[in-house]
Amino acid sequence: MALPEEIQKAQKIPTAFVIFGATGDLSRKKIFPSFFELFKAGLLSENFKIVAAARSKFSNQDFRQTIKERVKIQDTGAWEKFAELVSYVSCDVAENANLDLINKRLEEYEKEIGQCTQRIFYMAISPYIYANSFENLGKHQMHLGCKAHGVPAKIVIEKPFGHNLESAQKLTGILNKYFTQKQIFRIDHYLGKETVQNIFAFRFGNEIFEPVWNKDFIDHVQITLAEPEGIERRGEYYDKAGALRDIVQNHLLQLVAIATMDAPQRFDQEAIRAKKLAIVKNIIKMKPDEVAKATVRAQYEGYLNEEKVAKDSQAETFAALKLHIDTPRWQNVPFYLRTGKMLTGKVSSIIFSFKEKGHKIFENFWDKPMPNHVILQIQPQEGIGIRLVAKKPGLSTSLEPVDMEFCYKTSFDVAQPDAYERLLIDIIVGDQTLFLGQVEESWKFIDPIEEVWAKGKPKLETYKPGSWGPEAANELIEKDGRMWLAPLLTICKI
Amino acid sequence: MALPEEIQKAQKIPTAFVIFGATGDLSRKKIFPSFFELFKAGLLSENFKIVAAARSKFSNQDFRQTIKERVKIQDTGAWEKFAELVSYVSCDVAENANLDLINKRLEEYEKEIGQCTQRIFYMAISPYIYANSFENLGKHQMHLGCKAHGVPAKIVIEKPFGHNLESAQKLTGILNKYFTQKQIFRIDHYLGKETVQNIFAFRFGNEIFEPVWNKDFIDHVQITLAEPEGIERRGEYYDKAGALRDIVQNHLLQLVAIATMDAPQRFDQEAIRAKKLAIVKNIIKMKPDEVAKATVRAQYEGYLNEEKVAKDSQAETFAALKLHIDTPRWQNVPFYLRTGKMLTGKVSSIIFSFKEKGHKIFENFWDKPMPNHVILQIQPQEGIGIRLVAKKPGLSTSLEPVDMEFCYKTSFDVAQPDAYERLLIDIIVGDQTLFLGQVEESWKFIDPIEEVWAKGKPKLETYKPGSWGPEAANELIEKDGRMWLAPLLTICKI
Repeated sequence: MALPEEIQKAQKIPTAFVIFGATGDLSRKKIFPSFFELFKAGLLSENFKIVAAARSKFSNQDFRQTIKERVKIQDTGAWEKFAELVSYVSCDVAENANLDLINKRLEEYEKEIGQCTQRIFYMAISPYIYANSFENLGKHQMHLGCKAHGVPAKIVIEKPFGHNLESAQKLTGILNKYFTQKQIFRIDHYLGKETVQNIFAFRFGNEIFEPVWNKDFIDHVQITLAEPEGIERRGEYYDKAGALRDIVQNHLLQLVAIATMDAPQRFDQEAIRAKKLAIVKNIIKMKPDEVAKATVRAQYEGYLNEEKVAKDSQAETFAALKLHIDTPRWQNVPFYLRTGKMLTGKVSSIIFSFKEKGHKIFENFWDKPMPNHVILQIQPQEGIGIRLVAKKPGLSTSLEPVDMEFCYKTSFDVAQPDAYERLLIDIIVGDQTLFLGQVEESWKFIDPIEEVWAKGKPKLETYKPGSWGPEAANELIEKDGRMWLAPLLTICKI
Repeated sequence: MALPEEIQKAQKIPTAFVIFGATGDLSRKKIFPSFFELFKAGLLSENFKIVAAARSKFSNQDFRQTIKERVKIQDTGAWEKFAELVSYVSCDVAENANLDLINKRLEEYEKEIGQCTQRIFYMAISPYIYANSFENLGKHQMHLGCKAHGVPAKIVIEKPFGHNLESAQKLTGILNKYFTQKQIFRIDHYLGKETVQNIFAFRFGNEIFEPVWNKDFIDHVQITLAEPEGIERRGEYYDKAGALRDIVQNHLLQLVAIATMDAPQRFDQEAIRAKKLAIVKNIIKMKPDEVAKATVRAQYEGYLNEEKVAKDSQAETFAALKLHIDTPRWQNVPFYLRTGKMLTGKVSSIIFSFKEKGHKIFENFWDKPMPNHVILQIQPQEGIGIRLVAKKPGLSTSLEPVDMEFCYKTSFDVAQPDAYERLLIDIIVGDQTLFLGQVEESWKFIDPIEEVWAKGKPKLETYKPGSWGPEAANELIEKDGRMWLAPLLTICKI
């Protein structure tokens, strides 16, 4: 969440960016395309180098060619110049093979430009080899960065960070042997999305909503993150993780935190982290019998035939749950969360549903309740909306729900940068606002659920691909007299 | 503000509608076209008759022809049937000439259909002949309506009702000799507009705004009613009235009342009237020295050359003023009102400007204040909007004002009825919600201003046609560190 000055600062910091797992999906789909965009926008330092590292053998030239095929290139000239910044090293960080080659490559570059670089290690590798890899970086003193002038290195980690509290703490333990808090960037690309940041601006830049942003006015909150895709080629990882670890533990709990946190005293990373932590910490942990009642897990039909999935897999591809936050602001306000793969459409939104007050004066005019809703929508179109009641034009007074909306796309004639572009810039300038800081606290909420689920409670439901998930997810909210509102309540339709 | 059942009721009430001043602008532009629409929509009773009355001599046939030229006719067949409902009587209600002919015509019609009608007298005549006309109706016992079955008549009066408190009270005195409160309909067609009614629905059908709708959150309110037209052919009336009596005393004070009133306990005319009255009653009356400071009056250049205007006229065609409402909810919140003719554009809106709170956390991100505003817009397009602050898409965090809006035209695929259509239906069914009930209280606020103005304080400014009025109107608000926001803050642009 850089200020304009900070972005200018990024252009002045000599930087060597090492990408471990450079042949993987994330590198090809996100990291390289984003760097290319930043390069074209002139936002990278004049002294900037990318060292791509993976197990396969590639010449620099061949590796550049494989990346080129991924990146949509309209400006061939720019691409040729960008490609020159990228070199390839074959090594295995988890198995401690050839890490010296990386160090050597970095030292050569620093010698060439006659100054230290900020060395950044981006761990675009399987989370299951994090532990070894961190140790190996340490063994080669790579965390020390450019020793000549004491510029410490940074390390960038993708979610998931561990698969439960214990493993997360263990990973943290290893990391902390070598890296300080300021050197560690735990990425959640959802936090790099414009709307998520706009939630900050919306909540704390506008005075009109804060007075009603609490238990006195809000009946409940619901968050949906639905994906139409299946698990694709991620079977090996996904079958061990499941939706609760893959999405709820990080994305959804982060969204809960941002949407409900108290105002930070200053707009800086420390203050924001502290307020977010106060939310995640106070999410009420479920007792075993509550897990059976307040959670739903399900697997789409056909999942067992996916590549690299166990034939008797109990991994959930859909999770729904109801939680409460034990703070004065949110006491007794239920939060309903759900996420799933192979669902009808791509939807990602937070809906604040208001209590109905004072409707009595209109009781002649409607037969069903029409509460207000505030919609913070990330997918399919980014925007913020309010569902209101208005008078239908005409001679009689009949009330109808209408949407008041602000859509990013139509309001700003500016292309939105990819979430990764922002995150890469933030890593370079050292701004940790959008990075995860509540990993362990969120595992404390997730672990008790996983434990009960492991005992088969509640039972694993199934659902049809292209549906909105299992019926049990509807029952979860409907037994409270409420209903899922996405995708019914979608704003900024094209 | 009829319920659907009430509209059905209207279709069952045999009605005879007498229009005095049937050859005037209002009749031709509004009353007849609206009746024709209601007729086409099947909303008039099967037993429905219009008696058009004015001084000129017309045959029924000739009069129907003059009206036909005014009404946009797409359905000639419907027009022919509608025209049969209209007959013409030449009479002078102010001079008590030929009123018997009206009574006779009504009795004939009632005899023809074999039952009493509801007789309604629409006074589309100059307000300066109201007093005599009311007396003459009384002399001919026309207020009694259809005596055979005791269906009392109704009387409909256009603004202005009097030109000060004394004359208003005098008119009320005459009216009350003959008509009860339930028989009297004082029209303000602004109250028939969709958005004005939507303000009710917006304020009392939605729970999200009521908590901030008060002095704790609202910095000030501004109301603009700007017209690009001059006084046109209304010189005779306008030169005696001026903008303060013509617009502020009725339209603007009504808008103030609707936008600020407390919630009525029920959605019915009595309850709404009482809450509106509580506002108008509590508008703080200005002392003479305050009038000089808190009001602006001005005349457009060229006004003195308009038809039927005194060569040394001091009539204002523009008025601006600042007022306060002495209720717990609105204490110390300034209301800035302005209206004028020959201004740049057609704008009619109420803007609630919020206090800036909690912006400190963003102080790095802007150099100018960006408070929230709620815009209730009537012209140029009907809609409701909120001016918010949002993050501008891009890598840096910069905040910009954006509008979240709900526009009648795009949200509802329904033609809006003309304000008069609604008012005519309401008159027929006897719903007084949208009619003026605070006439005398509003004169109590207006009179002290007129008295000081009559003494030449503040001085009468001039302004150029096509401008936004005199510089003094800007100073009125700018000396408080605020500014006029319309037309800057216009929503629902096409």
